[in-house]
Amino acid sequence: MDWPVTYVRKVRYSDTDAQGIVFNGNYATYFDDTLTDLFDEIGYPWGEVEVVLGRMEIDDRSPARLGDTLVTGARVEKIGNTSMTIRLLTWEEASGRPVAEGKQIQVVVSGEDFRPVPVPADLIAAIETVQGAVER
Amino acid sequence: MDWPVTYVRKVRYSDTDAQGIVFNGNYATYFDDTLTDLFDEIGYPWGEVEVVLGRMEIDDRSPARLGDTLVTGARVEKIGNTSMTIRLLTWEEASGRPVAEGKQIQVVVSGEDFRPVPVPADLIAAIETVQGAVER
Amino acid sequence: MDWPVTYVRKVRYSDTDAQGIVFNGNYATYFDDTLTDLFDEIGYPWGEVEVVLGRMEIDDRSPARLGDTLVTGARVEKIGNTSMTIRLLTWEEASGRPVAEGKQIQVVVSGEDFRPVPVPADLIAAIETVQGAVER
Amino acid sequence: MDWPVTYVRKVRYSDTDAQGIVFNGNYATYFDDTLTDLFDEIGYPWGEVEVVLGRMEIDDRSPARLGDTLVTGARVEKIGNTSMTIRLLTWEEASGRPVAEGKQIQVVVSGEDFRPVPVPADLIAAIETVQGAVER
Repeated sequence: MDWPVTYVRKVRYSDTDAQGIVFNGNYATYFDDTLTDLFDEIGYPWGEVEVVLGRMEIDDRSPARLGDTLVTGARVEKIGNTSMTIRLLTWEEASGRPVAEGKQIQVVVSGEDFRPVPVPADLIAAIETVQGAVER
Repeated sequence: MDWPVTYVRKVRYSDTDAQGIVFNGNYATYFDDTLTDLFDEIGYPWGEVEVVLGRMEIDDRSPARLGDTLVTGARVEKIGNTSMTIRLLTWEEASGRPVAEGKQIQVVVSGEDFRPVPVPADLIAAIETVQGAVER
Repeated sequence: MDWPVTYVRKVRYSDTDAQGIVFNGNYATYFDDTLTDLFDEIGYPWGEVEVVLGRMEIDDRSPARLGDTLVTGARVEKIGNTSMTIRLLTWEEASGRPVAEGKQIQVVVSGEDFRPVPVPADLIAAIETVQGAVER
Repeated sequence: MDWPVTYVRKVRYSDTDAQGIVFNGNYATYFDDTLTDLFDEIGYPWGEVEVVLGRMEIDDRSPARLGDTLVTGARVEKIGNTSMTIRLLTWEEASGRPVAEGKQIQVVVSGEDFRPVPVPADLIAAIETVQGAVER
């Protein structure tokens, strides 16, 4: 898959737990860190809306260890009426081995009352400028 | 639902992010913390097996804020051949408001080569001692 | 020492690192969590001031492991002109064994421009209501 | 100062707290992450010893915010009989503004019984290969 942004993290002690591998909860953090980079890349051209996480799925593929360099890619996979589906993948850089796969549903909400609102046309345009055409 | 264990966490600065609410990645951490408590409660009566996370789903229901007390419950919902489904829920203590719902697939593996193995009978027995009969 | 508040944390996987012990950076987090509890206990009776961390010292006394229950106490040790010295201690509950000792300098600042301002008299009074007389 | 290694971290939501700035406990984590990079750079040429944190001091110089790029440098400042003093500094990349200063005492211990032992000569040599002569 083609990733418009990638986030690189070398695994250090703070990433690991007593099992000697990356603490599983950290994949949620890597995904969020990468999503921020994705939206930085897209820019925030939308007037009065915010984006909030509605749902996250993480599939653990293989453990990662101290000293591994992990790369996480994120892309907008699909744009719905009031939400976007984000696809994420973390892999070990040297081997390309998949470590964790993720999917997020990000809901577009009004910045005023946090109710879901339609994805603004200029946000869609900005995403497609970065990624090319996105499935609706 | 009836929760065999609950994990209580008062939200402090370290739980929050610059949006002023609990950082969404922390629900994965609360779930893991609670799962540890669940297995402490069940005991580890299984000979040579380990349990590793295969998949996690998190649905964000409502934001939590500094000073909220969050309660997370976990229970084994279903026991498969080589895996278990864990159901989790985080709610705000004072109001009972759901904050995040979770589902984990925990895979039982050999402690030797980390390949999936059948859930041991004595582990099933220990779970059912704590929870009553569990769906297969 | 007499601690006006104590914060209890059972060590779970999320607290540990690949050395099999609590990640040393987490003591800074436990101290901050406990400080929040201390100020919750004191209340925030000061008009227009905020408190920001100026300096922290941590002495590691002994490692803590998965399943240990750690207790952290915090107290205002000394009140200066524009700052307060906070004393902290984390110990293992069962044995009383010291795990980490801490000292923080918290600076009282104007909520408007974040410049140091004198510790307000009503804040001193509130602290002394909780702790008894505090060294100046 | 001349830093033999620097660790770069762009501030994302996971680094911040509800005050809208980097959570103060994270500087302890950045310092530990950078120390790991420093020892990776030096290599671990010492036979049977380990290094454990004995003491850490952190001085907060200025707040850091979402989107800031933070650089942390670490260097061995002094080598004692059984310990080393590490100097650390985190600054904001664009402006060079100091954010946090740190000092750590790392104790060299036997990998067998974790008692302090003299800093091995080949470790000193490896450090000086990377940094030049270090104060004793």
